Amino acid sequence: MTITDDIIRQIQGKDRSVLARCITLLESTAAQHRYASRDLLTRLPRTSPTIRLGITGAPGVGKSTFIDAVGMADIANGKSICALTVDPSSPVSSGSILGDKTRMSQLSLSSEAYVRSSPSGTQLGGLSSRSYDVIRLCTAAAFDYLYVESVGVGQSELDIAQATDLTILLMQPGSGDDLQGIKKGIMEIADIIVITKDDGDLAPQVRHMQKHLRSAVPLQRREGPVPVLSCSALSGAGLSDVRDAIGGWIADHTSSLKEKRAAQESYWYEKKASQLILDYVLASSTIGAAYRDSLTGIHDRSQDIYQALDHLENLLREGL
Amino acid sequence: MTITDDIIRQIQGKDRSVLARCITLLESTAAQHRYASRDLLTRLPRTSPTIRLGITGAPGVGKSTFIDAVGMADIANGKSICALTVDPSSPVSSGSILGDKTRMSQLSLSSEAYVRSSPSGTQLGGLSSRSYDVIRLCTAAAFDYLYVESVGVGQSELDIAQATDLTILLMQPGSGDDLQGIKKGIMEIADIIVITKDDGDLAPQVRHMQKHLRSAVPLQRREGPVPVLSCSALSGAGLSDVRDAIGGWIADHTSSLKEKRAAQESYWYEKKASQLILDYVLASSTIGAAYRDSLTGIHDRSQDIYQALDHLENLLREGL
Repeated sequence: MTITDDIIRQIQGKDRSVLARCITLLESTAAQHRYASRDLLTRLPRTSPTIRLGITGAPGVGKSTFIDAVGMADIANGKSICALTVDPSSPVSSGSILGDKTRMSQLSLSSEAYVRSSPSGTQLGGLSSRSYDVIRLCTAAAFDYLYVESVGVGQSELDIAQATDLTILLMQPGSGDDLQGIKKGIMEIADIIVITKDDGDLAPQVRHMQKHLRSAVPLQRREGPVPVLSCSALSGAGLSDVRDAIGGWIADHTSSLKEKRAAQESYWYEKKASQLILDYVLASSTIGAAYRDSLTGIHDRSQDIYQALDHLENLLREGL
Repeated sequence: MTITDDIIRQIQGKDRSVLARCITLLESTAAQHRYASRDLLTRLPRTSPTIRLGITGAPGVGKSTFIDAVGMADIANGKSICALTVDPSSPVSSGSILGDKTRMSQLSLSSEAYVRSSPSGTQLGGLSSRSYDVIRLCTAAAFDYLYVESVGVGQSELDIAQATDLTILLMQPGSGDDLQGIKKGIMEIADIIVITKDDGDLAPQVRHMQKHLRSAVPLQRREGPVPVLSCSALSGAGLSDVRDAIGGWIADHTSSLKEKRAAQESYWYEKKASQLILDYVLASSTIGAAYRDSLTGIHDRSQDIYQALDHLENLLREGL
């Protein structure tokens, strides 16, 4: 794939088939795609009106259904939508857990939406550095809203918060996702909390959880408490409140958003530059050879890890 | 601290105050401790009878209580115990969540046990590369059993599985930790599953969960199904079954354990060597300067991340 001015224009025109081909290019691990991939990324327009929303929460909480419902409401209000979802694969079997990749049945059929599912790979749902590239590409396509779904485990929530403007944490009533069981670190990065499945039977549990969460210490921020809402993707109840809260957050943060995005770019530069340096050092020089020798030796039990590290450090001290 | 032969002998003699000082040394980030730290690690004996058990599970499931109860039963059977616990701190506030660091009230008072709590730092509960050093140190002290507690979020379970011989996953009844909500990747690394809090009232829920889990696909291994037990740390019920299951696992895996540990050493060498290389490259040469310039530029929005990566790659191509 050669990156032409036409391709950049088609991306800006939200051309789905061009977007799909570009994402496949960015996700490729093949060596021959590296140059085109870098070329594409350096040529992307740097400004975009797109608001990026990270949607996170435990497996089964209803992230896809939520994006489907909120996204359709956005479209009904004349907005364009992009939804990037992560297809969870397990670290051991590397297989897909949810066979059905595209679970956003309404959005997938809408001409105002572009939905793409990417494999989560071996990162236990962590947003890989490649996913950030895909997010940058879809930002350049200038959709009004870009939804990024994470599989909701540990590192991925922190990574998703480094790639989106605001983070919406979904929780379900009676799921043990209450203050006892919740990962406190995740609550601290949530900008809006939405309790899902607020359908008839669960209403009392939803109210109880909402009250409980509203008094939770990690949700008391300097700029005011974090909104704790509820909705039902099934009945549509509460969805307009959720959309209002998102709009309110955006209005409140217009001035600080540029700075936040610059800090995120720094975060990803650090990650990507580190990997690049490591790739180069290990591909060349005596360091790479010593590294591989030690890996084999440690595996054979002929070398000790700390002695191997000592040896490596001596080589590094002698100069690269 | 100078590492003498005496210190190595005291470690092997399970001297608590020496162990405590050595762990403080290994956890220190101060530059002047680096040499002694590496010296200590290279001089540790490489063989040890210690069995290392990783104890993982969601916050609130009762990991500390479990280790306290099982560890006391081990001691009653003439065994020596070391328990390393992680003090969860949040990524945003960097503060401790559980003020009470030492929650193993019985073990802490026993002369046959050494209990140590380490801060989890900024890794969202991930077992840092330093924690692995501490585990190696305590392995050299030749306790019969070394329990390592992880805070139970994402990456940390995978890391803990790379530092211990077997992983015990704790789950509590009615916690939403059932098949719907569970992190499938974690179930795949569990060697034994124990449902906690099997006290009177919760018994029916425990039975239901146990039956449910026993039929779960991720628990069907080539070598047979993963044991799903239950216990009450409060009443002591089920604890001997848990200890039997651990003994059974060890007996079944004696021949493969050496190979598993060698593979783990390789995993940690890869992590530590990568960090070492990066530290050296960034501390010296034009690469380090370009890296820091770009970080500043990206933060100031005067540079684009992908153009900065292009620049870095050109420098790397010219040679380190």
